[in-house]
Amino acid sequence: MTSAAGSPNAADRAAAAVLAGDVRAAARLMRLLDDRDPSATEVLRKLYPHTGRARVIGITGNPGSGKSTLTARLIGKYRAQGLKVGVLAVDPSSPFSGGAILGDRIRMMEHAADPGVFIRSMATRGALGGLSRSTGDAVHVLDAMGCDVVIIETVGVGQDEIDIVRTAETTVVVLVPGLGDDIQAIKAGILEIADIFVVNKADVDGAERTVGDLRGLQMLLSEMPDWLPPIVRTVAARGDGLDALVSEIDNHGKHLQGSDQAERRRQGRARFVVQSLVRESVGRHVDRWLGHDATGQALVRQVAARQTDPYAAAEIALHTAIDTGELLQALR
Amino acid sequence: MTSAAGSPNAADRAAAAVLAGDVRAAARLMRLLDDRDPSATEVLRKLYPHTGRARVIGITGNPGSGKSTLTARLIGKYRAQGLKVGVLAVDPSSPFSGGAILGDRIRMMEHAADPGVFIRSMATRGALGGLSRSTGDAVHVLDAMGCDVVIIETVGVGQDEIDIVRTAETTVVVLVPGLGDDIQAIKAGILEIADIFVVNKADVDGAERTVGDLRGLQMLLSEMPDWLPPIVRTVAARGDGLDALVSEIDNHGKHLQGSDQAERRRQGRARFVVQSLVRESVGRHVDRWLGHDATGQALVRQVAARQTDPYAAAEIALHTAIDTGELLQALR
Repeated sequence: MTSAAGSPNAADRAAAAVLAGDVRAAARLMRLLDDRDPSATEVLRKLYPHTGRARVIGITGNPGSGKSTLTARLIGKYRAQGLKVGVLAVDPSSPFSGGAILGDRIRMMEHAADPGVFIRSMATRGALGGLSRSTGDAVHVLDAMGCDVVIIETVGVGQDEIDIVRTAETTVVVLVPGLGDDIQAIKAGILEIADIFVVNKADVDGAERTVGDLRGLQMLLSEMPDWLPPIVRTVAARGDGLDALVSEIDNHGKHLQGSDQAERRRQGRARFVVQSLVRESVGRHVDRWLGHDATGQALVRQVAARQTDPYAAAEIALHTAIDTGELLQALR
Repeated sequence: MTSAAGSPNAADRAAAAVLAGDVRAAARLMRLLDDRDPSATEVLRKLYPHTGRARVIGITGNPGSGKSTLTARLIGKYRAQGLKVGVLAVDPSSPFSGGAILGDRIRMMEHAADPGVFIRSMATRGALGGLSRSTGDAVHVLDAMGCDVVIIETVGVGQDEIDIVRTAETTVVVLVPGLGDDIQAIKAGILEIADIFVVNKADVDGAERTVGDLRGLQMLLSEMPDWLPPIVRTVAARGDGLDALVSEIDNHGKHLQGSDQAERRRQGRARFVVQSLVRESVGRHVDRWLGHDATGQALVRQVAARQTDPYAAAEIALHTAIDTGELLQALR
């Protein structure tokens, strides 16, 4: 171990600082985690037994649905209850620069000076599906540093983002009237991941039709679920409907506690996190080998020239990684 | 090998049928590939040396931007040139039902009866990032069956879908005026993946502002690229601007041929396909083990109870998969 936080003592100190709620220590840890610094993983492993206390809420929906405004309002409501709030804004970003696009994050700036609010943009780091790992890690850090509520907000509605947001205990899906025909496809796809629907911009034309469409889709369910997602109308820009949303989020939390759902979700989340870790680290290792190792590069050229098929190449790549013992290394 | 197409002769026959352009054989192969039937991989390996001839075009953009209408028009243009066209519509879909949502695919139905057009919806199959593998496989099948043009159209703009679409030779990014503030974030993220921009619905208010915004973003580039993505105005619903789009797609193809870009893209695509294969198969194997093997299930319970951290669990899962030799099996 070579980095600054690399010695056991340094890792213990870093973990203790995060557990004491030190914002700078938490921010530093998240940066190191983003860089896949092995010493950061050591710290996170020390934090892990202290996690699992935060209420994790996912918010997703189409671009333009007003998710960020809604999230900002929700932060305000939880702050008014005296709760400490962490926010992870999962952003699509340039695959080249690797940096997060702030975009409309600016709307949350009203909370930026509040020491009880911790906001972080999670960028997609290249093409390797590392987003779910980074987001999972960041949830653990926010949880360990004492956030009572962690909100995961996605900018897009891609499969990666949906996978991430549905690992939350309560998933809020935000719809907005009149976003065009494609919304039909989105709607159907998200029907089963939503614990709560929000129809935002409920004061515009077509809002009731959207509510009606949702109810119609729910009627089509083959069997009555033990939790039928409520539909909350909001006008986030004015703060309308936010109390109702907070109350439905609470209701859903109580519902989870009262059933075996809570444990089942915890296990589902654990399975997703472990699987993501393996998938991401193996993918990253193999990609690096293909791009930078002479043997890997030659293999890529053969596949591009149609001399080797991708399945044979994948077998060679995986075999090489196993034989050299580098695959297990990749996890660290 | 136990399935119907499992014997070497059956695989040879299936491959020959696809190469002869047999639509039913190609459709059957794609279904088997979706089911991860090992015999289908055998067929694909036989087809692979015969691929690499099709022109692969990616089309992406926000929901509501009119991508499907644009794709339908583009099909019409290529059909008028006598070309055989394959279309892969990459759809987000229910993580539970596993089926593709047809949604606005219906707009392409005008081409459904045309034997020179082959349209397939690619569903997201669960949470395991299998979409890139499925799409890559389907491109190879369409290519092998003699499609001159293969269009990959995404419904969403998630990272997975962006990764897929940018493996095309030419990536078309469709924007539409006035989709709200979030489009700023999307725009910045896709600036570097676009080979061609389309501003669709160019007859509505704000279209020129969108064109201006794009030009402004291009001015910010630190150095002049050797290909500055042209901006094409279309009104897909009326067919306006489609000739210009076809011509810019041709221009970009010629540009690729005249530089080392074409080879670099082929290699980038090969690397992405091989990496996806490894990542997806390993992830799928580990996820299944965590969900269905008694040892894996116990591990998940320990992680959920905070008795084992996810990193230690990921190492155990990967170690077990290597030791049992099941990891390489997973690729088949």
